Amino acid sequence: MSPYKILFHVNELERWPVALLNLVNLIKDIGKENLQAEVVANGPAVLFYAASPEFRGKLPATWSDEFLQKLLHDMQEIQQLGVPFLACANALKMNALEERSLHGFVTVVPAGITEIVKKQSEGYGYVKP
Amino acid sequence: MSPYKILFHVNELERWPVALLNLVNLIKDIGKENLQAEVVANGPAVLFYAASPEFRGKLPATWSDEFLQKLLHDMQEIQQLGVPFLACANALKMNALEERSLHGFVTVVPAGITEIVKKQSEGYGYVKP
Amino acid sequence: MSPYKILFHVNELERWPVALLNLVNLIKDIGKENLQAEVVANGPAVLFYAASPEFRGKLPATWSDEFLQKLLHDMQEIQQLGVPFLACANALKMNALEERSLHGFVTVVPAGITEIVKKQSEGYGYVKP
Repeated sequence: MSPYKILFHVNELERWPVALLNLVNLIKDIGKENLQAEVVANGPAVLFYAASPEFRGKLPATWSDEFLQKLLHDMQEIQQLGVPFLACANALKMNALEERSLHGFVTVVPAGITEIVKKQSEGYGYVKP
Repeated sequence: MSPYKILFHVNELERWPVALLNLVNLIKDIGKENLQAEVVANGPAVLFYAASPEFRGKLPATWSDEFLQKLLHDMQEIQQLGVPFLACANALKMNALEERSLHGFVTVVPAGITEIVKKQSEGYGYVKP
Repeated sequence: MSPYKILFHVNELERWPVALLNLVNLIKDIGKENLQAEVVANGPAVLFYAASPEFRGKLPATWSDEFLQKLLHDMQEIQQLGVPFLACANALKMNALEERSLHGFVTVVPAGITEIVKKQSEGYGYVKP
């Protein structure tokens, strides 16, 4: 059986916990080998990709350090299972984020919206967590 | 003509009135016989499925009892026209809801996100009301 | 190569700036000739289509007149590049808006949700900005 193809679209910082939980549940339920997923972040959601501590203050105030660590840990685990995390270059620019300030495993694409359009034309489903 | 296939994704309680209104308008416009729709709820949105009065306090405070009755009535009518309402088992657990506390017509699936992914691979469209 | 087909769904007024920015970036990135896009507004989002000044007060208070002019200008430019802007007739009615109060380039459809369903059955992707 060919794997299920699905694109996760995150454009608000507040939706990251839901998106990551969905991915964890999805992988647990159907198995990574049956899944071809990718995550596209644009808008202020790209701030979640910042590794540099100067951007900590831009994240939701309701996120404790402990909760944030848990989220970053989940993201890294999901990525290591083969799910790419993409950042929109337009969104990085609008949020004064440079590529070198991001976690090393994040892939920058010229326009997140183009990725969303192209992947669906290649048979990917779409979900907005 | 084969029916239009569409999956409605609801993951926030506040979006139920919009989702149900969309379904009512859709059925009115194209006719149930031309429609193969289903509704998948995950996250806190599953609390809307609770039949047990102890969960009334978890619903939006802006919903009057009268408004809530109207929503439940609409949901039941839509379901009777053949549109299944699904609940994510992970979300039920996270919201301390047991299957026996739900309206009898609700169908529980192991993971709502899997349903969303699989249905799109079967040709369903996706809408996030 | 056949053009990419994508439907933008806007159902909250607050999401218009994001939707228009996505469209501007998409057109810049892949070129209008490679794109078959359309925008469907339902819910209160249709108020953005009002040309009549009596509806100005219904728009987000955080939008300055200057910002609104910029948004309307972007919408008009995108439309002139061949992207139709559709309004749901049900939503117009619910928001006490008549077709003659809308910008001339807006197209009214009986039900926005039907358009969303049909276009996906014709191979369009879906994005919720």
